[in-house]
Amino acid sequence: MSNRRVLLRSRPTGVAQAEDFEIDEQPVPVPGDGEILIRNHVLSVEPAMRGWIADAGNYAQPVPIGSVMRALATGEVVSSNDPVYAVGDLVTGWFGWQDYALVSAGAIVRKIAERDLPSSLSLGVLGINGVTAYLALTGIGQPRAGETVVVSTAAGAVGSAAGQIARILGCRAIGITKGEAKRRLCTETFGFEAAIDYAEDDIGGRLAELCPSGIDIYYDNTAGAISDAVYRHLANRARVVVCGTAAIQSWADWPTGPRVERHLLVKRARMEGFVIFDHMDRYEEAVAQLATWVRERKLSYREEILDGIEACPDALAGLYRGENLGKRLIRLV
Amino acid sequence: MSNRRVLLRSRPTGVAQAEDFEIDEQPVPVPGDGEILIRNHVLSVEPAMRGWIADAGNYAQPVPIGSVMRALATGEVVSSNDPVYAVGDLVTGWFGWQDYALVSAGAIVRKIAERDLPSSLSLGVLGINGVTAYLALTGIGQPRAGETVVVSTAAGAVGSAAGQIARILGCRAIGITKGEAKRRLCTETFGFEAAIDYAEDDIGGRLAELCPSGIDIYYDNTAGAISDAVYRHLANRARVVVCGTAAIQSWADWPTGPRVERHLLVKRARMEGFVIFDHMDRYEEAVAQLATWVRERKLSYREEILDGIEACPDALAGLYRGENLGKRLIRLV
Repeated sequence: MSNRRVLLRSRPTGVAQAEDFEIDEQPVPVPGDGEILIRNHVLSVEPAMRGWIADAGNYAQPVPIGSVMRALATGEVVSSNDPVYAVGDLVTGWFGWQDYALVSAGAIVRKIAERDLPSSLSLGVLGINGVTAYLALTGIGQPRAGETVVVSTAAGAVGSAAGQIARILGCRAIGITKGEAKRRLCTETFGFEAAIDYAEDDIGGRLAELCPSGIDIYYDNTAGAISDAVYRHLANRARVVVCGTAAIQSWADWPTGPRVERHLLVKRARMEGFVIFDHMDRYEEAVAQLATWVRERKLSYREEILDGIEACPDALAGLYRGENLGKRLIRLV
Repeated sequence: MSNRRVLLRSRPTGVAQAEDFEIDEQPVPVPGDGEILIRNHVLSVEPAMRGWIADAGNYAQPVPIGSVMRALATGEVVSSNDPVYAVGDLVTGWFGWQDYALVSAGAIVRKIAERDLPSSLSLGVLGINGVTAYLALTGIGQPRAGETVVVSTAAGAVGSAAGQIARILGCRAIGITKGEAKRRLCTETFGFEAAIDYAEDDIGGRLAELCPSGIDIYYDNTAGAISDAVYRHLANRARVVVCGTAAIQSWADWPTGPRVERHLLVKRARMEGFVIFDHMDRYEEAVAQLATWVRERKLSYREEILDGIEACPDALAGLYRGENLGKRLIRLV
């Protein structure tokens, strides 16, 4: 029995490619005092990994070269010296891209209580993606029924949850995505009233048609040219949730764009950044609400599951190539 | 008896120059039903006038060509057909750049109750400048004792009030201004702990020295290169009050600059625009607080008074040339 691990081999500028990782094989570790051994079932692939790998200023320490790639995962406790966790518990947390994780309790985000739902949801709609969408949209966006909400990367794990939650709360949701397949996913599966293809459509023209009274909330995962177009259509008192900057390939050379200050001043609008790690005290509350909506079939999700740890090294680059339809996961067991 | 009026003659790109105005002379009007005639004593000159004149998207309708320049003023009621206003009342409001204003009650912002203080203060520290600084700093900035507050155009009417209010509320205030005279005004008169000369100093280097734990609140009246430098030093959970964009000569060709989204995301920071006209319901409360601080000598102000209506046409351009030390006013009586 061995533990295959995906290590960060080099620190790229921009998005890590397959060759920036290597897979090694080690003996499965044995838990010491207070430690828990977890057999990973499913590994997560996140756009935010680009930031976790980057050397430049960020909200988390960069993953060290030569160490296991930082990742959320779900798995089963196979051995435990912590009385809180028992063999057979399903858990989700910071277990990394590897078969087995030897952790202390601090690495565990939560026990998975929703045994009636697939445990992989803990890495998507019931995980940081869904929880982020829920807490950021409600906390910063403060949606009121009847308002117009525009979401970028609308077919993605965070964006699709944000759009659906907006609709559940009585708002109109307009998505921005790329390609016909994702556009249809937005309108047919995720309940967006309309979806704009940023690569094909005139974003500003479509926003003007679709949001004649302006955009009350912009849930943004991209920055860049998409956001530049959206800002021009903000309504008075608009709220911009800054949740990600996927359109910017690198901040090593800080990119420029149209200045936002005048939009914010004239519209008395607000922009605010959201990082889930500040809000872990509300994680259980958020998962409980999201799980209720999933069970009521108000909240849909889409997963794209790759098979086997060998899929890890290229999985992040593939995400940035936009090849996935649904939350990208890697199944080990 | 005649009424001299300063009319907007042409709509400039950028800041209106003297030749964009003309002065005419008309008979003093006679109040009709419900109308009030006011003899203006002091006229105000505001950086925001650039925006009121501009044709591009703004928070107020542009001043029509050929009409009296929109301006706040203080004056005395000389004739009234409104029972609320009596001859001899001192009032402040939207009376325009002219000797006499014929208005209805809606143009009057307030009766001046602080008869122990100079009535000109109603156009500065006890007017929209002070009220803006107070409501925007407390409302958006939400200062807590011990925090570090950076203010741009720190020697100006809004900036000097914002810095002093920050200090009154227990914060450290760092000013950004231009030139030794204004720098000294900031530290010696307005109680800033330090003032950075943006034209002479390395803004980023000075901010790093002066704000080693980062900037908690940035009260911004400029945008542009000053703000770009400040954003790099925001603390986690920082608040940026977007109160003006004085550094941008024109938004007709929308200027570019370093993108802000990554700062906001990584620092979980907030930027929000403030326009006083949304908050007129709190005007009296704010003036009462500010007047108390003025009487207690906790809140200082500086006025620069030009003499006679002939000073109007060049007064706004001069403001943007940075030639004034203190709130620029024009005294008629």
